[in-house]
Amino acid sequence: MDRCISALRGAYLDFASGVAVTRRRSDTLIPSGESIYGLKTMDGIAPNLGVGAVRINSDIVTWPKVGSSYRRVKVPAAPGSRYTGLILVFSTETGEPLAIMPDGVIQRMRVGATSALGTDYLAKKEATMASIIGSGWQAGAQLMGLLAVRPEIQTVRVFSPNSAHGEAFCREWGSQLGQEFCAYSLITDAVQGADIVLCATSSIDPVFERKHFEKGMHVGSIKPPEISRSCLDLADKVCVHLGHGKPALVQADNLVVPDHSGDRGWKTSDAFDFSSCTTLADLISGATNGRTNADERTCFVNDLGLGLQFAVVAGVTLRLAESAGIGRVLPTELFTQVEHP
Amino acid sequence: MDRCISALRGAYLDFASGVAVTRRRSDTLIPSGESIYGLKTMDGIAPNLGVGAVRINSDIVTWPKVGSSYRRVKVPAAPGSRYTGLILVFSTETGEPLAIMPDGVIQRMRVGATSALGTDYLAKKEATMASIIGSGWQAGAQLMGLLAVRPEIQTVRVFSPNSAHGEAFCREWGSQLGQEFCAYSLITDAVQGADIVLCATSSIDPVFERKHFEKGMHVGSIKPPEISRSCLDLADKVCVHLGHGKPALVQADNLVVPDHSGDRGWKTSDAFDFSSCTTLADLISGATNGRTNADERTCFVNDLGLGLQFAVVAGVTLRLAESAGIGRVLPTELFTQVEHP
Repeated sequence: MDRCISALRGAYLDFASGVAVTRRRSDTLIPSGESIYGLKTMDGIAPNLGVGAVRINSDIVTWPKVGSSYRRVKVPAAPGSRYTGLILVFSTETGEPLAIMPDGVIQRMRVGATSALGTDYLAKKEATMASIIGSGWQAGAQLMGLLAVRPEIQTVRVFSPNSAHGEAFCREWGSQLGQEFCAYSLITDAVQGADIVLCATSSIDPVFERKHFEKGMHVGSIKPPEISRSCLDLADKVCVHLGHGKPALVQADNLVVPDHSGDRGWKTSDAFDFSSCTTLADLISGATNGRTNADERTCFVNDLGLGLQFAVVAGVTLRLAESAGIGRVLPTELFTQVEHP
Repeated sequence: MDRCISALRGAYLDFASGVAVTRRRSDTLIPSGESIYGLKTMDGIAPNLGVGAVRINSDIVTWPKVGSSYRRVKVPAAPGSRYTGLILVFSTETGEPLAIMPDGVIQRMRVGATSALGTDYLAKKEATMASIIGSGWQAGAQLMGLLAVRPEIQTVRVFSPNSAHGEAFCREWGSQLGQEFCAYSLITDAVQGADIVLCATSSIDPVFERKHFEKGMHVGSIKPPEISRSCLDLADKVCVHLGHGKPALVQADNLVVPDHSGDRGWKTSDAFDFSSCTTLADLISGATNGRTNADERTCFVNDLGLGLQFAVVAGVTLRLAESAGIGRVLPTELFTQVEHP
């Protein structure tokens, strides 16, 4: 996580100066039986690492209702109940493919690292208590990122509507780390008095409400709808990852997206305009200030992934894997050609 | 080529009816030494074949001057002097990767088949003489496509500024086919009296001029600048592949594209507005007419590739390869994952 954060920090500086580039995510969608088939791609180039990357997700997506809220759920429909997500890494010097990697672990780490960078610029330096809303796969990465930028945190409260999940999360992480962990099944209890609240849910409804938002608090989210519109309005600073949080959509005419899902599975009825918000690149490059006093309410919305993030994290991962002798060497000639493309 | 044309014909019908979808090509570009590094991607889904595809080119591009005109040239900089172009094919039912293929042969076949479809709707049915401008890799596919839709052609004239190249092309194809082939080193001689002229060059300057454009002629091009603006103005019908012929560009701020190259290596000073032209999907779906009389001058401009073309042609190729037992089976589990992406 430290390496991931440091690599991304460099990438945002390169992005802010116009050297690194990234193509906005696109979602190409058709109906597939009762579900939706989506081909999601994003590209980026990290010149300082000498790599370009394409991240591809080939997803079967559904929107089941879980408890009182809808969730956007990917179905592991590939053989062996597996998901399909790939990162292809290319050399900017020769064009050749350098690696093909599954995206799952990297996806989680880059989300955690991105949120951590937001936290680093926006949360109180002297934060000691943090809350994690959610106890799943993404929640672990939020925790790792948080502790990388705020190692002084002493108490971590974890909310899950399912007590067993929250308690399992606390046991797992509590056994590895020096912080005190405690599980809660009411959000209000979990966030009260926290310096930092990090949402890491698959909910497409708001989970963090205005009544929870105390003076001096920093709230992070891994997708826009987690923080309610009224919280965003109350915040002294709302910063955003990219600032135009919608993918480019290409949809078949016969596609029916569930009514409650908005155009990418989010409610849009109470949409907030993120387009004029400070971005993470602004914060990191110093173009704008982060937190300036202990009383500010701050939000960081990790709105949309960038191909550049995958180029950077996959590029660093590739170097580490090569040093460690991890992975299989695929013959380059199978993935190159003599024919002019 | 017959299979390729037939598969694409079906795809354009599905595209016209909004069932098949395609994401417009994007070019993400940075400087790389004296050259440009480009990561070019396009996605498409062909529901009737049950496949989605992403085509990726990872290119080192230069713009050398050859003779009196500039060319856009990709450098085979990968080990063994190879190019990097891939098509990844996915199942729309399970999401899983079905194949990874080099794109070179398919790229050429789909360009040839697309131009052939344009020719089929726009050229005279009773055409007997055709000219090919160019004698390279793409010229061969133009010829194959042409003869698939106009098998009655008796004479093929081939222009190349390099006589040896033109003659070699004529020898190669003449030995396989029943048509009479003849090489020319002046365009005027090569095209005079032809029913169909197909440009297949890497030139970024016009090669087919107004003075060449006779009554009743059909002229095809594999990139917009090959046919001069004054020819397009003279034509009775100008049809186009897609109709918005520019890729989505993402460029580093420090990128310097050569002055003469326009924004994708083409001169734009004499730009023609293709956006209101009839598209190939219009012609195939019957939304608009093709040629209606023997005197019309017609143009088909194969302006920009579609991810859908690659989904369709790669999908059909995959089935043929499976039937024939061709290719290597890569273990699916290497390209899928248990982690939620």
